[in-house]
Amino acid sequence: MKGNRLALVKAITLMESTRPEDKKMAGEILKFISTPKDKSLRIGVTGAPGVGKSTLIEALGMAEIESGNKPAVLSIDPSSMLTKGSILGDKSRMVALSAHPEAYVRPSSAGIFLGGLASHTYESLLLCEAAGFNRIFIETVGTGQSEISVFSLCDITLLLIQPGSGDDLQAIKKGIMEWADIFVVTKDDGEFTSKASLTFKDVKTGLGFHNSENGFVQKKVMKVSVHNQNSIAVLKNHIEECFNILVANNQMEVLRGKHLAQFFNLEWPRLLQNYLMQDEKTIHFIDELTFNLENSKLDLENAIQKLIRFIFARHF
Amino acid sequence: MKGNRLALVKAITLMESTRPEDKKMAGEILKFISTPKDKSLRIGVTGAPGVGKSTLIEALGMAEIESGNKPAVLSIDPSSMLTKGSILGDKSRMVALSAHPEAYVRPSSAGIFLGGLASHTYESLLLCEAAGFNRIFIETVGTGQSEISVFSLCDITLLLIQPGSGDDLQAIKKGIMEWADIFVVTKDDGEFTSKASLTFKDVKTGLGFHNSENGFVQKKVMKVSVHNQNSIAVLKNHIEECFNILVANNQMEVLRGKHLAQFFNLEWPRLLQNYLMQDEKTIHFIDELTFNLENSKLDLENAIQKLIRFIFARHF
Repeated sequence: MKGNRLALVKAITLMESTRPEDKKMAGEILKFISTPKDKSLRIGVTGAPGVGKSTLIEALGMAEIESGNKPAVLSIDPSSMLTKGSILGDKSRMVALSAHPEAYVRPSSAGIFLGGLASHTYESLLLCEAAGFNRIFIETVGTGQSEISVFSLCDITLLLIQPGSGDDLQAIKKGIMEWADIFVVTKDDGEFTSKASLTFKDVKTGLGFHNSENGFVQKKVMKVSVHNQNSIAVLKNHIEECFNILVANNQMEVLRGKHLAQFFNLEWPRLLQNYLMQDEKTIHFIDELTFNLENSKLDLENAIQKLIRFIFARHF
Repeated sequence: MKGNRLALVKAITLMESTRPEDKKMAGEILKFISTPKDKSLRIGVTGAPGVGKSTLIEALGMAEIESGNKPAVLSIDPSSMLTKGSILGDKSRMVALSAHPEAYVRPSSAGIFLGGLASHTYESLLLCEAAGFNRIFIETVGTGQSEISVFSLCDITLLLIQPGSGDDLQAIKKGIMEWADIFVVTKDDGEFTSKASLTFKDVKTGLGFHNSENGFVQKKVMKVSVHNQNSIAVLKNHIEECFNILVANNQMEVLRGKHLAQFFNLEWPRLLQNYLMQDEKTIHFIDELTFNLENSKLDLENAIQKLIRFIFARHF
């Protein structure tokens, strides 16, 4: 809470650990930290691979630093769970921001299968806020179940759109517009300029006039280029304006409560898992069941039944 | 089990239901069904949006029917959870296969947040097999946590690659090659032919010579066009050959055991959730916690503690 970066890194690592003693300590840490709800903004950034999420976050992050804010970036890359490491290597993608003393970039962590992506992200988010970071960017491709839960952690969500991409438009028309607040057409430079303008118009037409889910901010379509500092400033100012409107109307607490309820509803099984996995014997029992399933000594139905009986006998 | 399609549809709907009485009945049904492990093949099909998954599955499905097999298709579209319906509408994407009496195409279901994508898919899979379908295609974009669990349900996994896509190649080099068995460059026709050839060579070079995870089949790179019946037949024959090799070496049971163990390890929290949600009072209690979270009368930590205490008190 004094802003010691090493302590933050260590704390996040504890949250992601699957060791029972680490989980216990992580739980203790979480009890101690807190941040006022109108002191930080949680910004979700989603879009297809290659649309330029990391590049835009870096540009926005640098702009936030210039305004005196402290950005942190949490990247969700579920494919890294397969390869035990991020495929694209986030650090190399946000060079300036990673190196900046006022920013913190957390690379996608490996081995976070146990306990769920989303709940780890929530804990990391709380830790970043406690360490004094006040603009938290959460980057996700947003196509999976846990990644969708992640949106319920964000106050404002940006959907990034590739110039000339018909797929995205179709998606927008059919429903993604419900949860995104700002629709950002990326790569508005060089050969993409005319495509970006067309896509910008298409999205604008498709979107019409709608308020954000929070009811206080109107949804907006923008086009940006990371090579055009002005376009980044305009986007950053719009984000800040949304935040100011929410704070001025005392909506941050309402929004966070609503979102936390959504998050709980979606993620309680993973949160329950985190709790149960604090117990060494439970972990061993799950390993044993897994072994018997592998050797066809058990079927799935019986494995679950046995697990339930074990958990209840063990904990009560 | 007599192949009544309406019964199959009803049973799958029961599995996806969140009503406690439906969940109970679903559990009863699952206890009754079984299929010998070497009678059906579960084929995972993954790849980026727009790469042509549905089109290829339709072509493969029709080819399987010609060989006397009965294909079923289960589509996983997590984004449909947001919109309460599939974005692209699977039915309209597989017109011929959907209409064929020997095939069954299950559109992505809405509202399957509760209980998890992966466990519903597993149950639907078992039901399709029990109803006599013996080539089960599972289609997923494969980028989320639950979608990755879905791979552990498949005997053979196809990774579809867009001609000229550098991103996919990078991913392949860094790790996706670990779990995919067949790498399929799609759209090898018209203007894409030369790009498809280049991508084919790149993937082949990047992949080298590796055995599949099962150790009995070598990984293979192929290029196909749905407008070239021969290319589809070659792919279908390769899939069948893989299956025959696994069966001839008594590997189907080994593989399924290994995969089921993986699946359990990843998905037990959702399976536990399915069990707990059979109880009406538990559902009400979760609703109550959600309400209190929304109104900031409760924090997440306390909500989880209360839920755990309730569950244990209720069930034992």
